[in-house]
Amino acid sequence: MAKELNTREDNYSQWYNDIVIKADLAENSSVRGCMVIKPYGYAIWERMQAALDKMFKDTGHENAYFPLFIPKSFFSKEASHVEGFAKECAVVTHYRLKNDEDGKGIVVDESARLEEELIVRPTSETIIWDTYRNWIQSYRDLPLLINQWANVVRWEMRTRLFLRTTEFLWQEGHTAHATKEEAVAEAEQMLRVYTDFAEEWMAMPVLRGVKSINERFAGAVETYCIEALMQDGKALQAGTSHFLGQNFAKAFDVQFLNKENKLEYVWATSWGVSTRLMGALVMTHSDDNGLVIPPKLAPIQVVIVPIYRNEEQYHAVCDKGREIKQWLEKADIRVKLDDRDTQKPGFKFNEWEFKGVPLRIAIGPRDLEQASVEIARRDTLEKETYKVEGLVEKVRHLLDRIQKNLYQKALDFREQNTFQADTWDEFLELIEKGGFIRAHWDGTPETEQRIKEETKATIRLIPLKGKMEEGKCIYSGNPSKQRVVFARAY
Amino acid sequence: MAKELNTREDNYSQWYNDIVIKADLAENSSVRGCMVIKPYGYAIWERMQAALDKMFKDTGHENAYFPLFIPKSFFSKEASHVEGFAKECAVVTHYRLKNDEDGKGIVVDESARLEEELIVRPTSETIIWDTYRNWIQSYRDLPLLINQWANVVRWEMRTRLFLRTTEFLWQEGHTAHATKEEAVAEAEQMLRVYTDFAEEWMAMPVLRGVKSINERFAGAVETYCIEALMQDGKALQAGTSHFLGQNFAKAFDVQFLNKENKLEYVWATSWGVSTRLMGALVMTHSDDNGLVIPPKLAPIQVVIVPIYRNEEQYHAVCDKGREIKQWLEKADIRVKLDDRDTQKPGFKFNEWEFKGVPLRIAIGPRDLEQASVEIARRDTLEKETYKVEGLVEKVRHLLDRIQKNLYQKALDFREQNTFQADTWDEFLELIEKGGFIRAHWDGTPETEQRIKEETKATIRLIPLKGKMEEGKCIYSGNPSKQRVVFARAY
Repeated sequence: MAKELNTREDNYSQWYNDIVIKADLAENSSVRGCMVIKPYGYAIWERMQAALDKMFKDTGHENAYFPLFIPKSFFSKEASHVEGFAKECAVVTHYRLKNDEDGKGIVVDESARLEEELIVRPTSETIIWDTYRNWIQSYRDLPLLINQWANVVRWEMRTRLFLRTTEFLWQEGHTAHATKEEAVAEAEQMLRVYTDFAEEWMAMPVLRGVKSINERFAGAVETYCIEALMQDGKALQAGTSHFLGQNFAKAFDVQFLNKENKLEYVWATSWGVSTRLMGALVMTHSDDNGLVIPPKLAPIQVVIVPIYRNEEQYHAVCDKGREIKQWLEKADIRVKLDDRDTQKPGFKFNEWEFKGVPLRIAIGPRDLEQASVEIARRDTLEKETYKVEGLVEKVRHLLDRIQKNLYQKALDFREQNTFQADTWDEFLELIEKGGFIRAHWDGTPETEQRIKEETKATIRLIPLKGKMEEGKCIYSGNPSKQRVVFARAY
Repeated sequence: MAKELNTREDNYSQWYNDIVIKADLAENSSVRGCMVIKPYGYAIWERMQAALDKMFKDTGHENAYFPLFIPKSFFSKEASHVEGFAKECAVVTHYRLKNDEDGKGIVVDESARLEEELIVRPTSETIIWDTYRNWIQSYRDLPLLINQWANVVRWEMRTRLFLRTTEFLWQEGHTAHATKEEAVAEAEQMLRVYTDFAEEWMAMPVLRGVKSINERFAGAVETYCIEALMQDGKALQAGTSHFLGQNFAKAFDVQFLNKENKLEYVWATSWGVSTRLMGALVMTHSDDNGLVIPPKLAPIQVVIVPIYRNEEQYHAVCDKGREIKQWLEKADIRVKLDDRDTQKPGFKFNEWEFKGVPLRIAIGPRDLEQASVEIARRDTLEKETYKVEGLVEKVRHLLDRIQKNLYQKALDFREQNTFQADTWDEFLELIEKGGFIRAHWDGTPETEQRIKEETKATIRLIPLKGKMEEGKCIYSGNPSKQRVVFARAY
C-alpha cells in the first residue's frame, strides 16, 4: 500500500481517520473542532450539494440566505428549542479589537461590547421564523418553501472529522404551510427525498422512521429520520425532517388570514443534512485499501494510467490515453489521465485505489498492439482486459454496475447485521455484536433512558408503517404494539 | 406603477433601496447590518456563482472550505494586514450560555470563556496560509490554486443592502506559486476573469487597473481592480485581485524546496468578488420602472401573461401559454407562465416589469385567432406583435439583443460621464457632476489623501497599460507621467 492504513478490524476509528486524512478529504485546523475540507473532499460534497439542490428545486423549493448571527433573546422564545440548542454555542460579545497599550499585539476593545450578545447559528429556525412574520399575511403567501445552504456552529466537546465538528456545512429547509396535513406531507416528502438521495447517489441503504421523544429535535412535534448502518455495527443518523407543528409560529407570532378571513397560526417543517454525510459515505463503502466512492459522487470516475519503459513508449501510451480520455469526456464521464513522469505506475495504482476512484484503466505498449486496455474495478479489485472498441459503453456499464454493487453490498451487510431480541439477555448479547436490533419497547422515555444508561444503545427509530405486533418490552416487560430499532450510534 | 418607487433623480439612494426591497431581492434582518437575501435575489446570486465557478474551474482552480473562525493571534502575524482588517470584526469570547439563576432567560456562562478569542473571518488569508504551511513542501506541490465560497463578517458602522453589509457572501481565491512572475500572472488572469464576468454576464462595463498605495488591500504588494460607474456618477469597486508577494508566506513561514533543492518562500495571490455585485447589477441597469436584469442572469427570462375576459378564454390562452412555455423550456430558456386568476393582467405587467424580467409575452383571444403574441422588452419598454411560428428563435434573438443593448447603454453612459481635468478648478467642478475623472497626480499618498479630504474623491485606479503622458498633478503641480482615474465611490 502507498499509505499506512489501519485495518477496520484492528482499529476502526483510526482506520476512518486515516482514510479521511490520507485520501485528502479533510483535516483538522488550528481552530479547535473546526475542519478544513480539502479540494478532493469538497469536490465530493459539491456533487452531493448539486444532486440535493436539484431534488429540492424539483419539489418546488427555492434557496435564500439568512443571517449567520442570531440575537440571544431569540433562543428563549421557543421553550424546548432553547433547552436543546442554545447552550453549547459560539457567543459574539464584542465588535472591535485594538492595539494593546503595552504593545503586546491586539486585544479585545472592551468599549465595543454588544448590547445583546449574538449567537453564531447552531440552526436557523428562530431567525427564519422571525423573518417569516413579515412575509406571511394571508393564505395566498403559503406555502413558503425555502432552503438555505449554510455553515452552522455547535460547540462540541469531542469532535471527529465530518462526523461531529464545531463548524459544519449543511442545508436547512424551512417551510410554512396553511394546514397541519400539508406540513406533515412536506416533512414526509423531504424524508423521501433524503432516502432517494442516500440510496441512489450515496449507494447507502437507510431505514426510515420517526424518533422517540428523547431523540426528537428540540422544538419539533415529530422528527422523521433516516438511519444507516456503518461497518462497525454502529448506526448513523443521516438526515432528519421535522414537523414543527405551530411551535415556532406561536413563538414568533406568525399568523395568516385563512380563506374564511380568520387568523390562524402557520404550520412549519424544517429538514437538513450536513457534511456528516461525508463521514457516512466513507464508512459505508471504504475498505482496508482505502476510500471507495460510488461512481455518481466520484469527482474522478475513471483514471487512466500509462505503463511504459522508455520515452518513446511514454508518448505513445499517453497519446492513446488522451484519445480515450476525450471519448469518455464526450460521454460525460469524469476522467483523469495521470501522465506524471515523476511517479511509477505502481505508485499511481495505489494512490488512486486509496482515493477511491471507481475505475482504473491501464494502457501499456502491448495494449497498444492489441488495441486493448486493462480495467480494474475499485469495488471488487477485479482486473480484466477489454478491447478498445466499444470502450465507452463498457465503462458506462461498469460504472453503473459498481454503483449498484456498492448499494447491494451495503444492503447485504445491513441485513446480516439486523437482529431481533425478545429478551433482555438476548438484547445485551446482541448489542455487543453491533448492528440494528428490532425489539419491543413499552413506549416510555424512562425505559429508553435506562436502556441507554445500561447499554449505550438508543432507539434509532420507530419504523414508519412498521408491522404491528403484540409483544412485551424487553426491559420492563410491559406491553408493546410494535418493534422499534435500537443501536449504538454515532 | 404597481409599487411606489422613488425616481433616480428625486432620490437616488431611496430609489436603490426601493428596488432592492420591493423587487424582493433582499431586506434588513433583526440583526444590525445583516441582510436576508430573499429567494428572487438569491436566484440571481446563484446564477452569478455558477458562471464564476465555471470560469474558476476552467482556469484550473478547485474549491475547498476553511474555518469560519480565526484565532486572534493570527491577525498580528502580518503587520499591515492587521491594521487594515482586524479592528472592526465580530469577536467570539465564550462558548456556552446558561439559564439565568434569577430565571430571567439565558445568559452567557462566564465560566466558558475562550482562552484565546476567535474572530469571525473578515477574509481568510491568515487561516489559509496557516494551513498551506502543511500542504507545501516542494515545488511539486505548486501551484496551489484554491477558491472558497463563504460568508464573511466586517463590522460596518453604516450599512446598505448588498453594497455594505456586516455579513456578506463572497468567493475568495487563494493561490500559492513558486515564482513571482507566476503569481503576478495569476493575479492578472483573475482580473481578466472578473472583467469577462462583469461585461459578458452582468452587461456591466468596467475599467481595469491597479490601486494606489492608499487604496491597496492590507497585506498586498499590488491590488488589481475593476471599477464600474453607477447611474448617479459614483464609482463602484466590483472585484479585486491581489498580488501578495511573499508577505503571507513569511508571516506564516511557508517555504518550499525549489528544483535546486533550496528553500524559498512561496509567492501568493488572493482575489474576490461578493454579493456587492448584486448592488452593482441593480444600479447599472435599473430604471424608474424598477429592476432591470440582463437575460444571462435573470432567474426568469420570459414571463407569459394570459389576457382573458371569461373562463373559456382563460383556459384557451393558458393552454397556448403552456405550449409556448414548453417550446421555450426545450430551448433552455427560463420561463414562467403567470396563470394566477387572482390578479389582473395590468397588475402582472407591472409586477414583472418591476422585477426586471427581460421579456414579457402577452397572449389574448385575438392572438389565438391570429396565431400571434405580443412581446414587450424590459430594457426599451417596446412592444411588438410576432407570429407564433418561429417564436423560439425570435425570443432567443431578443434576449441576446437585450443583453448586448444593456451593455452598450451602460458603456455609453460611462463614456458620457468620463472627463478629463487639467486644473484643480476643473477637477472641483467635474467632481460635483459625478463620473470618472482622468487627471494627473504626483504619485504621492499625501496628495491623494488631501484630494480625498477636500473632495471625497479617491483614485479608483491607475490604468493598466494606460497611455503614458507627461503632465502636472492637478493638486500639487508636481510632474506626473500618467493620468489616473478619480471618482467618488461606493
